[in-house]
Amino acid sequence: MSVSYTLSELAERLAGEVRGDPRVVIRGVNTVAAAQPDQITWVSDDKYRSRLSVSQAGAVLVRRDAGDAPMPSLGVDAVDPALCRLLELFSPPAPRPPAGVHATAVVAPTARLGRDVAVGPFVVIDDGAVIGDRTCLYAGVHIGAECRIGADCVLWNHVVVRERCQMGDRVILHPHVVLGGDGFGYYFADGRHNKIPHHGGRVVIADDVEIGAGSTVDRSKVGQTYIGPGTKIDNLVQVGHNVSIGAHCVIIALCGIGGSTVLGNGVVLGGQVGLRDNIRLGDGVVVAACSGVSVDIDAGQTVSGMPAVDHRQQLRELAVTRKLPDIAAQLKELAKRVQSLEAATDHS
Amino acid sequence: MSVSYTLSELAERLAGEVRGDPRVVIRGVNTVAAAQPDQITWVSDDKYRSRLSVSQAGAVLVRRDAGDAPMPSLGVDAVDPALCRLLELFSPPAPRPPAGVHATAVVAPTARLGRDVAVGPFVVIDDGAVIGDRTCLYAGVHIGAECRIGADCVLWNHVVVRERCQMGDRVILHPHVVLGGDGFGYYFADGRHNKIPHHGGRVVIADDVEIGAGSTVDRSKVGQTYIGPGTKIDNLVQVGHNVSIGAHCVIIALCGIGGSTVLGNGVVLGGQVGLRDNIRLGDGVVVAACSGVSVDIDAGQTVSGMPAVDHRQQLRELAVTRKLPDIAAQLKELAKRVQSLEAATDHS
Amino acid sequence: MSVSYTLSELAERLAGEVRGDPRVVIRGVNTVAAAQPDQITWVSDDKYRSRLSVSQAGAVLVRRDAGDAPMPSLGVDAVDPALCRLLELFSPPAPRPPAGVHATAVVAPTARLGRDVAVGPFVVIDDGAVIGDRTCLYAGVHIGAECRIGADCVLWNHVVVRERCQMGDRVILHPHVVLGGDGFGYYFADGRHNKIPHHGGRVVIADDVEIGAGSTVDRSKVGQTYIGPGTKIDNLVQVGHNVSIGAHCVIIALCGIGGSTVLGNGVVLGGQVGLRDNIRLGDGVVVAACSGVSVDIDAGQTVSGMPAVDHRQQLRELAVTRKLPDIAAQLKELAKRVQSLEAATDHS
Repeated sequence: MSVSYTLSELAERLAGEVRGDPRVVIRGVNTVAAAQPDQITWVSDDKYRSRLSVSQAGAVLVRRDAGDAPMPSLGVDAVDPALCRLLELFSPPAPRPPAGVHATAVVAPTARLGRDVAVGPFVVIDDGAVIGDRTCLYAGVHIGAECRIGADCVLWNHVVVRERCQMGDRVILHPHVVLGGDGFGYYFADGRHNKIPHHGGRVVIADDVEIGAGSTVDRSKVGQTYIGPGTKIDNLVQVGHNVSIGAHCVIIALCGIGGSTVLGNGVVLGGQVGLRDNIRLGDGVVVAACSGVSVDIDAGQTVSGMPAVDHRQQLRELAVTRKLPDIAAQLKELAKRVQSLEAATDHS
Repeated sequence: MSVSYTLSELAERLAGEVRGDPRVVIRGVNTVAAAQPDQITWVSDDKYRSRLSVSQAGAVLVRRDAGDAPMPSLGVDAVDPALCRLLELFSPPAPRPPAGVHATAVVAPTARLGRDVAVGPFVVIDDGAVIGDRTCLYAGVHIGAECRIGADCVLWNHVVVRERCQMGDRVILHPHVVLGGDGFGYYFADGRHNKIPHHGGRVVIADDVEIGAGSTVDRSKVGQTYIGPGTKIDNLVQVGHNVSIGAHCVIIALCGIGGSTVLGNGVVLGGQVGLRDNIRLGDGVVVAACSGVSVDIDAGQTVSGMPAVDHRQQLRELAVTRKLPDIAAQLKELAKRVQSLEAATDHS
Repeated sequence: MSVSYTLSELAERLAGEVRGDPRVVIRGVNTVAAAQPDQITWVSDDKYRSRLSVSQAGAVLVRRDAGDAPMPSLGVDAVDPALCRLLELFSPPAPRPPAGVHATAVVAPTARLGRDVAVGPFVVIDDGAVIGDRTCLYAGVHIGAECRIGADCVLWNHVVVRERCQMGDRVILHPHVVLGGDGFGYYFADGRHNKIPHHGGRVVIADDVEIGAGSTVDRSKVGQTYIGPGTKIDNLVQVGHNVSIGAHCVIIALCGIGGSTVLGNGVVLGGQVGLRDNIRLGDGVVVAACSGVSVDIDAGQTVSGMPAVDHRQQLRELAVTRKLPDIAAQLKELAKRVQSLEAATDHS
């Protein structure tokens, strides 16, 4: 499949403005470095504009108020949404199973499917589950009993949603996500760890949440584990039982969030961050990558390090740490000088 | 489904003692903060008792010798097992496939299934595998050739157990666990990494082990990778080839254990801990979350940090690290004062 | 299944040389510590030779120029490849689905399968996918539309390769690997994170790559995410969108590589390493386990720590950090002595 547009055709679709030759033919989108003469690139930040001079791109998407570019340009009010529109124009949509239930799927008679639900091969939907309109379940998805899945969701291959979990509309779960596995809870008695039952709990996911491949969200033993609207979670993230995550958070790959921890709205966790159990992060907290947080963090704070502290404090400590060998040497030398002074004083 | 009990009915089932109105009707269990008037909550630790005063719970589960509570209470000898019993009473059990083999499963004629084994849809069981009585395989599980699975095990969706691996009784494997993938072993020659065959090795799991969603346990190249009885492993943990883990260990999410490393009994690894290959952790070692261990650790030690050292030493170092900017400033100021003294001494 | 060879038969197959009794019967391979009298062990490094004195092994594989061993020995030019040959001789090969398409698999009519391709149960192959000769797809694999898979590849259970991804020959993907999930890219506008379409991008994997269980490689939004020939990736590793990894790299478990980061050839990442987005690691860079890298690293450097710096610098800093409590005490004591000197000077 191949599509092409002239720059002026693109300008029409994006409500943009052409500078330079409007007849240049564009067949794709690519980075400044990799774009070919039949591709359009983009510059969303003025600091990257200088790279354009060595780009082979046939055209560039820029802000409407940007200066001249070395190739024909398409000026728009906001680059990011226009770029998304370009990507849609040139990319065939991801193939999905057709609406309806694949012949190989195993769907309980008591499950209720909305209009135009797409159920791929080898999908299992258990008793009493409800699937919203136009939701798409790729091959091998398993929806447990009495789950409620919203409309326009996309559950990629082998996603497992255990019994009684719930999600809103437009939720995207990438391959191998597990929602509602038992929380990691035991009590120690009689010389062994005794399992605390978790099948009474559940996971509740709000609208517009996206969760990356292989991530796991455990069910609570009572109440629910919750992920708020618009929150985006990357691949291979672990969310413990009874965790509550606010709206519009961003959680990068390989983070682990301990049980019953609470995140406010707009929290950002860098990659590989660990949060211990039973702590609270206020609205807008930012935790730098590879940090570990073991205490409550007030709203608006940026923290880093292990254990994480205020980021500016951490930077100050790091600056001194870099000089530690010098400091040790200076201290030693100073001690000698003091000793000399003491000797001199004794003699004086 | 909805169940309800009066407090006196619950007391009878838990061999407990009611204080206050025994006729209060309970329909569920919840936390102190979230419990409603028709729910029972619990306090396992006296330090949380003060929170009861603002709880709306209709009743509270406490130790038999606990003091008065602001709502009717149910006193028991041990709160944890009683709480588990309550959770069982109010939670419908997790749905499972019925005993027997689902019509879509692919079971080799030479596989041997015990009594009341439940085999879900799209399960694959290969040649010569043996599955113990009452074990349950959820949809999409794959049991490799000549595996031996014990009785009363629960293998959740898409668990993969590769050929010739073995597990005891009452083992629980959460969705997407992989047992017996090839160990990560190569030798470098002729300008490339050459794969060392691992299909001769295997993984052996003892009784009562539980492994969380997405965790992976690699097979050894010779001998076996071993996990001892009663050990509990959280989600997204990597266990390398030829690792040996003792009994009743607890390993939190996102840990990585390098090849041939040996853990004694009762070892605890906090979340995101890394253990290098070929080291030994003695019985009862505790490694704090986010630590990295690169040397042998004696039995009974608690370690933390990267690289991990004795936890008290780590705390002392951290306390000074917090003051490093001050220390650098003090050192600078002291150097000046010494210089003044030296000048004064020269002049004197 | 049981196989046995005399030591002289093994010598013939390995082009090796027997010292001691050539008639000893060998039925398996095991470590020095665990080997039994009917097993052969190996010593690839002279420093481990001393352990042989307490080994029960019936024979030992050594370098041809090694000294005497306490049991019959088999001398070869290079121990590692000979050990691999031994492991192959004594281990039955991993069972695989027979060539042909399993009756339960769902293969699009437009997919093209090479000679002797093995397609296991519950495999899905979408429109226009091309699978090379002798490639093996275990149960539950999903190959997306228009993917191109090379010859002699092995894709273990439940591997998901999304649409239009590509891989070379002899690629091994362990269970639950996900190739080509959407990259984690959003732009913030109107109070929420807006998804940037990624279905136009893809993942390209070169020849002889191996990727461990549960690892995820995201697709780019434009261009491609790339993994070079001979690179080996362990379990539970996350590779972000548009990352480019060179040839013959080694990446240990639980690493995370941020979007658009570029690794040269022969890079080694220890376990749990994090690389931020948009940085470059030159050829031969080594990053120690549990480190976090946030800046470009020149070719040939070894770095460690969080944030990672030159490894020798890191070791020097660590050595001082171990002494920080002493240093703080010394500084305090020195301040007192300076105060005394100042007092004495004032009085003099």
